[in-house]
Amino acid sequence: MATLKSLYETNTEVGNALHTNFDVDYVIDYRFATTSMSILAHFQAIPDHPAGVPQAEAQFVKLIEALNDVGLSTEVRNGDNCAVLIFVKVASDRHLRAEVYRSRVQDWLYGVRTVAPEKEMQKNLEDEPVTEAERLRLVYLLITKPKNEGGAGITPKSGEWKGVESIFPLHDHIFNKAWIKDLTSKYFLNEKDLTAVRNRFGEKVAFYFAFMQSYFLFLIFPAGFGFCCWVLLRPFSAFYAIINGLWCVVFVEYWKKQETDLAVQWGVRGVSRIQHKRPAFKHERIVKDPITGEDLKIYSPLKRLGSLIALCFAIEVFISEVYNGPFKTYLVFLPTVILTTVMPTLSTLLTGAAARLTDLENYETTDSMVSKIFILNFITSYLPIFLTAFIYVPFAQIIVPHLDVLQLTVQPFAENEKQIETPKAGFQINPHRLKQQIIYFTVTAQIVNFALENVVPYVQRRVFRKVKEVQSNIAEKRGGGTTTPDDHPEEHAFLVRVRNEAELSSYNVTTDFREMIVQFGYLSLFSVIWPFTPVSFLLNNWVELRGDAFKIALQTQRPVPWRADSIGPWLDALSFLSWMGSITSAALVYLFSGNGLGPEGTPWNIKVWGLLLTIFFSEHIHLGVQLAVRKALSKIDSPGLQKERAERFAVRKLYLEEAQGQDAAEQAAAGGIVAGEKISRSTLEEEARQSTLRGHGTPEERFWQRQQGQAEAIAIGKEYIAKAAPKPTNETKKEL
Amino acid sequence: MATLKSLYETNTEVGNALHTNFDVDYVIDYRFATTSMSILAHFQAIPDHPAGVPQAEAQFVKLIEALNDVGLSTEVRNGDNCAVLIFVKVASDRHLRAEVYRSRVQDWLYGVRTVAPEKEMQKNLEDEPVTEAERLRLVYLLITKPKNEGGAGITPKSGEWKGVESIFPLHDHIFNKAWIKDLTSKYFLNEKDLTAVRNRFGEKVAFYFAFMQSYFLFLIFPAGFGFCCWVLLRPFSAFYAIINGLWCVVFVEYWKKQETDLAVQWGVRGVSRIQHKRPAFKHERIVKDPITGEDLKIYSPLKRLGSLIALCFAIEVFISEVYNGPFKTYLVFLPTVILTTVMPTLSTLLTGAAARLTDLENYETTDSMVSKIFILNFITSYLPIFLTAFIYVPFAQIIVPHLDVLQLTVQPFAENEKQIETPKAGFQINPHRLKQQIIYFTVTAQIVNFALENVVPYVQRRVFRKVKEVQSNIAEKRGGGTTTPDDHPEEHAFLVRVRNEAELSSYNVTTDFREMIVQFGYLSLFSVIWPFTPVSFLLNNWVELRGDAFKIALQTQRPVPWRADSIGPWLDALSFLSWMGSITSAALVYLFSGNGLGPEGTPWNIKVWGLLLTIFFSEHIHLGVQLAVRKALSKIDSPGLQKERAERFAVRKLYLEEAQGQDAAEQAAAGGIVAGEKISRSTLEEEARQSTLRGHGTPEERFWQRQQGQAEAIAIGKEYIAKAAPKPTNETKKEL
Repeated sequence: MATLKSLYETNTEVGNALHTNFDVDYVIDYRFATTSMSILAHFQAIPDHPAGVPQAEAQFVKLIEALNDVGLSTEVRNGDNCAVLIFVKVASDRHLRAEVYRSRVQDWLYGVRTVAPEKEMQKNLEDEPVTEAERLRLVYLLITKPKNEGGAGITPKSGEWKGVESIFPLHDHIFNKAWIKDLTSKYFLNEKDLTAVRNRFGEKVAFYFAFMQSYFLFLIFPAGFGFCCWVLLRPFSAFYAIINGLWCVVFVEYWKKQETDLAVQWGVRGVSRIQHKRPAFKHERIVKDPITGEDLKIYSPLKRLGSLIALCFAIEVFISEVYNGPFKTYLVFLPTVILTTVMPTLSTLLTGAAARLTDLENYETTDSMVSKIFILNFITSYLPIFLTAFIYVPFAQIIVPHLDVLQLTVQPFAENEKQIETPKAGFQINPHRLKQQIIYFTVTAQIVNFALENVVPYVQRRVFRKVKEVQSNIAEKRGGGTTTPDDHPEEHAFLVRVRNEAELSSYNVTTDFREMIVQFGYLSLFSVIWPFTPVSFLLNNWVELRGDAFKIALQTQRPVPWRADSIGPWLDALSFLSWMGSITSAALVYLFSGNGLGPEGTPWNIKVWGLLLTIFFSEHIHLGVQLAVRKALSKIDSPGLQKERAERFAVRKLYLEEAQGQDAAEQAAAGGIVAGEKISRSTLEEEARQSTLRGHGTPEERFWQRQQGQAEAIAIGKEYIAKAAPKPTNETKKEL
Repeated sequence: MATLKSLYETNTEVGNALHTNFDVDYVIDYRFATTSMSILAHFQAIPDHPAGVPQAEAQFVKLIEALNDVGLSTEVRNGDNCAVLIFVKVASDRHLRAEVYRSRVQDWLYGVRTVAPEKEMQKNLEDEPVTEAERLRLVYLLITKPKNEGGAGITPKSGEWKGVESIFPLHDHIFNKAWIKDLTSKYFLNEKDLTAVRNRFGEKVAFYFAFMQSYFLFLIFPAGFGFCCWVLLRPFSAFYAIINGLWCVVFVEYWKKQETDLAVQWGVRGVSRIQHKRPAFKHERIVKDPITGEDLKIYSPLKRLGSLIALCFAIEVFISEVYNGPFKTYLVFLPTVILTTVMPTLSTLLTGAAARLTDLENYETTDSMVSKIFILNFITSYLPIFLTAFIYVPFAQIIVPHLDVLQLTVQPFAENEKQIETPKAGFQINPHRLKQQIIYFTVTAQIVNFALENVVPYVQRRVFRKVKEVQSNIAEKRGGGTTTPDDHPEEHAFLVRVRNEAELSSYNVTTDFREMIVQFGYLSLFSVIWPFTPVSFLLNNWVELRGDAFKIALQTQRPVPWRADSIGPWLDALSFLSWMGSITSAALVYLFSGNGLGPEGTPWNIKVWGLLLTIFFSEHIHLGVQLAVRKALSKIDSPGLQKERAERFAVRKLYLEEAQGQDAAEQAAAGGIVAGEKISRSTLEEEARQSTLRGHGTPEERFWQRQQGQAEAIAIGKEYIAKAAPKPTNETKKEL
């Protein structure tokens, strides 16, 4: 928390710059010369100028004009690294209000809103004040939308706008400070907190926090239960597996419901449907980008990843089982170290590559990338454990002898023959390996990951800043143009802050989601190995949530507040992991429950049909339970859906009232068919007589006139009944 | 077709009665004395009179008054069997029109219609004429709805209306005749045919015909493919199983889509949602009925069914494997005869019991009963084959010796010792048993079923009518009240027809659905045993569809035209059967593919793990394919959904136009954010100057006024760029 303090209190240089954003909506970081952000480039301090100053200037003029054309005010200030900062805000309040109203009406047209906006714009804006997220989203769209859709058509880092390094809103540091202080002082987020996040950072980020919150709350149960199992039961307990599987199902189904409910409450249900309806926009961009080429880049690290896992695996098996040389105690940890340090980095890199691709494509096609990210992470995160559990341990006897080859390589290091002798008979594999591995992945990796996410970027930035200072000093010594910009004293502190924010990387909520989903996977797939897992996750997630908030507030640029009506494809990933869990947990319990060494104490001697039968039952029970839970939850009416129904009904009723007057609407809404007009006997009889006057009419008319009205029908009916009734005794006859 | 001919042409007694319904909407068959319809009761001819004539009369008066109170005209005529027939129609056309309009508005309020009805009633009714189904549905609701919802509250056969035997609309014989003639003359139904069914019999029945049509069309492929496999490949071909499984998945997913599309086209999407929203009505009725008591009645035949199957099974095994006595050739067919004749009857009985329960509960709770019916039918239809395939054949060696007990019972019939000797060694089970069984179920049972459905009721009715004649003759001979009613000559033929229709049973579409779903189950689960199955089904279904139409037109009362937006829970049954199919087909192929006797020719020697692994893969491939097919189909936009979206959008746009004038709506609908107001540079500059006049203002104001308008921003930005740009050569400097 040193950074927080330094930023908010002791950093006098920044001063009161944190208390105002000068009404700036967005800052556009325009680089007129391409410099890479690497340390090397900083030291070189020779910007690359391929296009030349004139082109850069012409593009800059075009940029300013495009912004002004869509009704945005601009102010230009000096930036760092051969950049100018263009400050953007909506020129007139009236213009903004019109944009907001238009967007709301459009939402209603596409069915996102159930309630039509008030017909008078002014009244609507008073009833529903514009949130910061709404304003920022609309301004961003105004900047980035294609010209034919009414935007300025500025697409950062692509096409003619390659010079536009980033477009970002400024942090609201007063809010951020209060927010983080608030988060660190409480255990659970309430609805108000989520609404605050939503109003500042948009629904997409708010959904992440809502998910974290639900997940955290739900984790309390398995944490408590897992702790008990860890203390009381042997590992690989079937009891734990069943309860844990059940919990996974309930959690996933609960979240599905909760997600819909939140989307309704936030008025964004169906937003994803709208955003997918811009095929023209999407197609234009897909053709532009060499997607197939980029795809190859993803699969080449994947291959390397495979070899890495195989290598670590081989090293691990060799060191722990075959090698008996010096430093064995320490060397055993070598593959773990490799995996836990290299894997998160690789994962991050892969996700980065995927994310970059997504940025290039379009923000609307994120979904397909998320699926790719999930598959990649599934492999990197779970494959090592899969290998250990289902290949190494059961088939060790077959595998280990083949590792003899490795012996030759270590022979020089061995002190004597005995140390490298392959233990042919009485060979015992390490039954605790699996547990060790899961501990690394669920504890060590989490800590490493946290450090990578929060500490490394901070250190990196510090180094960069130092480098920059040195660099500017060198430049000054060399003479020539001063790189210290001539800021107005009133703005200096503010501009320093903005320049720092411009250097930050942008926040990607997908990365955070990935982390949580992968974590859920460990819980669902493997926590039966070590029931303490959920306890570790509970603790981690408390920190994680605050860490993420801290990251958003201080480590990254403020995110553009996108809307979303769901956590998207991660939901499918959750369901899939929960399903897979029913298979792996059953398999693990069957394989290892007998003293940690298979049903008969020898895991390589297990009955395959027994294993398969266990999996078969477990999986189908899982599916059955899932169906039951889903049905049960669907019976519970959620407040959000109730609200939506009521609103939709009210809107239609209002429409009817306006069209037909109060009465008709009331009647129709009453839900029943009301006898609208009173058909009295007299009118009927009158009608009949009218027809008689006109002659005898058709056979149909004659049929309906035989009994004039109800009274005659009753009389004749009674007669029929009396006649047809049996007369067994005289009493009934008399009654007639 | 004898009945058809007799009804339409030669029956002079009925005469032109078939050409008019005398504008009757509904006929209420009111029994003032309880007579059972059994033959015995007819011969006894002494009606049971527990309540007495006065009560019957009072209730009759109440009935007529209730009908008249909700605006219905009534005419009373004599009926058969101590009944009066009450003819009902809507008293005034205006009243009907109001009802129709009100119902349409209500549909819109609850979201069933996307297009709001025209605001002027008259214009709406001209634009969308009232179909017969719509009128009949509304009149039925008027008769049966509770009084607090504006109906007459008449509930047939329940509560105070126990005397109301049935409420049924009259057949439109002219349409029926043309319809059946049309059906028998063509192979496929087209959209027009389905719309005709929908307009006459309502969406619920129309969905059945639509399903039949889709199913029939889809069957052509497996029929052709199955025929080829039957000719070319050995039975239990894995190739056939895979293609068949794929076909099942595609069909089920296609139908899901098709169903939604039809619902939209027919304007009934979401109807089921509305109908479920009457909890009060439902609860009231559930409490009244002794459901738990009735449930027991269902499970007792279930037990008997179980014993029946076990018995048949034992007889079959014994006769074919152990018994060598006389008549063996004929006796082998005994269990088949028992099963094929008794099973459909039992199924019908069970379905009847379930249906009766449903009627008592409420028509809205049909769904839960359908699930029960499905489970019952699953057991009765598939259990015998399951037993043969997975118990009898693989475990015959273990089972057969235990049948020694049976030997003792047949010893007297045996001609010599040799005939009943248990074949201990060299015992060979009959590998064709499974095929024989599937042939019985898919061919014989279909024919028996058709006879039960169409021939038996016809014969039954003929017998009843004969009995009635004899009975009335006896009554006349005995003297006393004549049972021949004194009909008006003009109406006599019509009334005879109505009395006949009153005797018919009511049509239940669930029964027909059940039959088709069970058939689909044979195809999905077991057709790998005998690939000729789909050919038989294709032929059967051509007849079946016409038979069902014939049944609706002549064998049953005209159904009340209910609405529906789906085939309901049968859809889940289809998915389930398709899924199960992936398991059973894989198992059958694995067990029997090797020469029909297991992978190594000996089915009782199979590897359990191999079987389980086959099932595991088959099932998961099935699920994967299902997901893929679903995704692929969801990409295809269906005309119905397109129509719905367009309509919804148009409605909202219209609303906006009315509220805001043409322009704003156009802009909002354009989908883009348009620069609504032109913010010219001059206005901006003016604004800035205004603020300057007012003094220097806040720091924010000062920040935004440093550059007055676009021109200044551009100039200053250019300056920054020039200054910060490196000056490696003099040329660039000069340009500035």
